[in-house]
Amino acid sequence: MTFTDQLAAAWQDNDSLLCVGLDPDPAKFPAHLKGRDDAIFEFCTAIVDATADLACSFKPQIAYFAARRAEDQLEALIAHIHEKHPGIPVILDAKRGDIGSTAEQYAVEAFERFRADAVTVNPYMGRDSVEPYLAFPDKGVILLCRTSNAGGSDLQFLDVGGEKLYQRVARLAAEQWNTSGQIGLVVGATFPAEIARVRQIVGDMPLLVPGIGAQGGDVEATVNAGKTAKTTGLMINSSRAILYAGQDENYAAAARRAAQETRDAINRYR
Amino acid sequence: MTFTDQLAAAWQDNDSLLCVGLDPDPAKFPAHLKGRDDAIFEFCTAIVDATADLACSFKPQIAYFAARRAEDQLEALIAHIHEKHPGIPVILDAKRGDIGSTAEQYAVEAFERFRADAVTVNPYMGRDSVEPYLAFPDKGVILLCRTSNAGGSDLQFLDVGGEKLYQRVARLAAEQWNTSGQIGLVVGATFPAEIARVRQIVGDMPLLVPGIGAQGGDVEATVNAGKTAKTTGLMINSSRAILYAGQDENYAAAARRAAQETRDAINRYR
Repeated sequence: MTFTDQLAAAWQDNDSLLCVGLDPDPAKFPAHLKGRDDAIFEFCTAIVDATADLACSFKPQIAYFAARRAEDQLEALIAHIHEKHPGIPVILDAKRGDIGSTAEQYAVEAFERFRADAVTVNPYMGRDSVEPYLAFPDKGVILLCRTSNAGGSDLQFLDVGGEKLYQRVARLAAEQWNTSGQIGLVVGATFPAEIARVRQIVGDMPLLVPGIGAQGGDVEATVNAGKTAKTTGLMINSSRAILYAGQDENYAAAARRAAQETRDAINRYR
Repeated sequence: MTFTDQLAAAWQDNDSLLCVGLDPDPAKFPAHLKGRDDAIFEFCTAIVDATADLACSFKPQIAYFAARRAEDQLEALIAHIHEKHPGIPVILDAKRGDIGSTAEQYAVEAFERFRADAVTVNPYMGRDSVEPYLAFPDKGVILLCRTSNAGGSDLQFLDVGGEKLYQRVARLAAEQWNTSGQIGLVVGATFPAEIARVRQIVGDMPLLVPGIGAQGGDVEATVNAGKTAKTTGLMINSSRAILYAGQDENYAAAARRAAQETRDAINRYR
């Protein structure tokens, strides 16, 4: 099954546009997990198992694993998701971007080694830096378009021939690069008006929207700006607000409550 | 010693502007290394030991290691360079780019886990995506500016207020982001006129120049466009033309000859 089909099924089956971001920071783990060799895997799988029926996707952020020499735990985590929750696609948040021959290696890393269903990619190096990922026909490629951080405007908000750079990225993606329907875009929830502009450009393309929760984005404005006619089209990511909703050994139950509240808040505006 | 000081010393001590890129592809290894568990480490350390007195830096490309679950060999390779060739800085070519909290994790990956002296970073997400690397005061941060691939023009060559996007990146880096002298830029050898424009903008800032050798860039034009008044300022990268100069068990000697020829060709135009 392709990423696109998996995502469409998960939107419907779980009645959810919520993407649960997995950014495991051991400094924030409950006390009983600290010091364990497999703490990252244990923490993340408990979150996954507690939220899988409420989510349309999981998004592990590779930097949190790489900083701690924990690639093996990331492999095991994604294998766990595929085995226990086979309907939920996994987006590896890696934001890779390099020339073609190197991008081929990154595609192997994301899709063969880690078995992700989709990967985030930086568009700064252009079309041939994106194509090696598209060569995996079942996989999704989520390009950075308008990011939720303050510095995102430094480049993305520059005027390029009557539009902003992020709009040009959306246009290139939709009109030239997405010949096989595998592409989605990252558009931050901190800028709902810009989500709406991107949606106008890209039609039904899936948008991955970080920035609600810890980063302060508004759920109602985000959903109204980004939903499609089918009231889908969005993967609204929440990471820290779910992962660290609880501080003690009941953290998974607390995460479930936070995920449910977020999913329901999103669904009120669909 | 800071990356900048290390680089200045290596330019002088080895009379070289050559950066040896380490993109190990086991499919291209000599037959006697194939099938060995530590083939990547063995291949790369032999190249390193054969070229260290001819190079101003080494640049391992992390994708080639990550695709093969070989982060341990990358750690061992960089430790080997620090131990055996302590004057030569190591640039981890990772092209990371993410929001601040995630960039902090990538900085730990590059500088603490892998012990690189510098890392390549993608500027698309702006200033706060770069700052966490600069928080390591001895380390270098090499930002993508004008890349050597065909698709590089898709975004980088767009007009933004009277200049191209890559020029704006150079200007932001030189005038706003480089408050501590840690920043360098990637500018491809396939566009010598653009190297000259970047040099005008950034003064003596170090430029990492990929694209000679396998990618076809011209050495004379590159050196003339990019050298500084001190006839330094450049790290001219060659990867495949050195790594795969020989096909048999004498590959390291062949790599040394290729490195020497490239260094000498560069030096003719300094």
